[in-house]
Amino acid sequence: METLEYRERPIGVFDSGVGGLTVAREIMRQIPNEKIVYFGDTARVPYGSKSRETITRFSEQIVRFLQTQQVKAIVVACNTASAYALDTLEKEIDIPIIGVVKPGAKVAAEVTRNGKVGVIGTEGTIGSGIYSSYIHQINPQVQVTGKACPLFVPLVEEGLWEDPVTDEIASRYLTELIDIGIDTLILGCTHYPLIRKTVGKIMGDGVTLVNPAYETAVELKALLEQHELLSPCPPALGENRYRFYVSDAADKFKRFANSIIKYGILSAKTIPIEEY
Amino acid sequence: METLEYRERPIGVFDSGVGGLTVAREIMRQIPNEKIVYFGDTARVPYGSKSRETITRFSEQIVRFLQTQQVKAIVVACNTASAYALDTLEKEIDIPIIGVVKPGAKVAAEVTRNGKVGVIGTEGTIGSGIYSSYIHQINPQVQVTGKACPLFVPLVEEGLWEDPVTDEIASRYLTELIDIGIDTLILGCTHYPLIRKTVGKIMGDGVTLVNPAYETAVELKALLEQHELLSPCPPALGENRYRFYVSDAADKFKRFANSIIKYGILSAKTIPIEEY
Repeated sequence: METLEYRERPIGVFDSGVGGLTVAREIMRQIPNEKIVYFGDTARVPYGSKSRETITRFSEQIVRFLQTQQVKAIVVACNTASAYALDTLEKEIDIPIIGVVKPGAKVAAEVTRNGKVGVIGTEGTIGSGIYSSYIHQINPQVQVTGKACPLFVPLVEEGLWEDPVTDEIASRYLTELIDIGIDTLILGCTHYPLIRKTVGKIMGDGVTLVNPAYETAVELKALLEQHELLSPCPPALGENRYRFYVSDAADKFKRFANSIIKYGILSAKTIPIEEY
Repeated sequence: METLEYRERPIGVFDSGVGGLTVAREIMRQIPNEKIVYFGDTARVPYGSKSRETITRFSEQIVRFLQTQQVKAIVVACNTASAYALDTLEKEIDIPIIGVVKPGAKVAAEVTRNGKVGVIGTEGTIGSGIYSSYIHQINPQVQVTGKACPLFVPLVEEGLWEDPVTDEIASRYLTELIDIGIDTLILGCTHYPLIRKTVGKIMGDGVTLVNPAYETAVELKALLEQHELLSPCPPALGENRYRFYVSDAADKFKRFANSIIKYGILSAKTIPIEEY
């Protein structure tokens, strides 16, 4: 077992911007003893429409930064980065690292009753076919249908979480998934839990929504247990429990972050990520 | 006067992504003898929500790249970069450089009859107050009202140029400008000419829409004349008249670009802009 000091090191969590805060929030809820160092790549957000090579290069820089922060494990809290970069990152570092895709895929494969699963996400995540490939590793019989929803992130960031415009756009995106008759829908982008109500209303009660943010926190806890890395007690008062870093516009990040996380974000610091 | 060979060098045009193609298109129409090297920063798009420091750093890298392409002049075909970075860039290079803001501001100051001008653009452009400050240099009496419209770019990029959703979002954004009674509206983001019809319909016939892309091409021509830099004749057949570079996802860029520019984009090449 690692030393107590080592087990008290923080978890590194990163995303292209603010979306990964929905994952950080679940970790805060489910494993409150853990410290978190969060990085949001706000200078280069969004990742969803960019290529595998670019996303991998950006993710490698971020992982190098997080390692300077002495993290004991890393969570790739971005579906696009999990889809494109996780394989490469796993080979490059020797601490535990997990993405948000596998935990969501696993639960979807388990909960579907009619074998028809839908996935919504960015162009990158859907185009990669990653959810489908993980689900098929568990159960090759499941029929997986992906649908890219490029307007969801801007709508969420504009604050239109419950709005007729979001209803209309969501109806257009989701119609084909309803027609196929899916019974399980993966919210395959970290922003989407924030419009969960809208999506749930359109899909109806018969469809189970899978939130990878929640499942990822569950899996992270299990992974830390397995590696004997769980922090045994809460950080002392006054310790820097949750630290936030961004590559641009820290004030704007703070405002949005405070609308998602109720623990209070004391400060967000800007760092030059291109230099890592 | 510069040598013929020098005058036949290309114009460098850059933007955060595809939006600046509306400016390139106007240059192609108005000064068809000129060659163009276009750069779209698709790895780091969008610029509209990012900070002055970041936008300036990105713009400096792009200008260094364009200079390796032997350009004789540079057009900053992005409102946010014009607002934030142009002052700095002007000091750093010794070839002519213009942005899209000043030409649009000049025309708006000239055409308004009631002295009430509206500007729509990204958060960055509007927050900078740059249109207002240029207009006031020409006529301090003009009342300038800015309105950030963050959803317009994603709506345009999703192809919803004429759509009830775009109508609805535009109505919300523009209501306050209608209430103020502006008679002139600057389309202060290079994507917006593509939803000109929607904006025009909502604002009504009494409001003149100013398209900075058009005015910038007019001003570029005048600037080249003044510096005796106009290319005297069209490029020879088979010459690489229009060249396109991006920092990511060249194929996707090509598809969107071909929907805007009818001259045919033969190829777009990806370059590692962070290394410049």
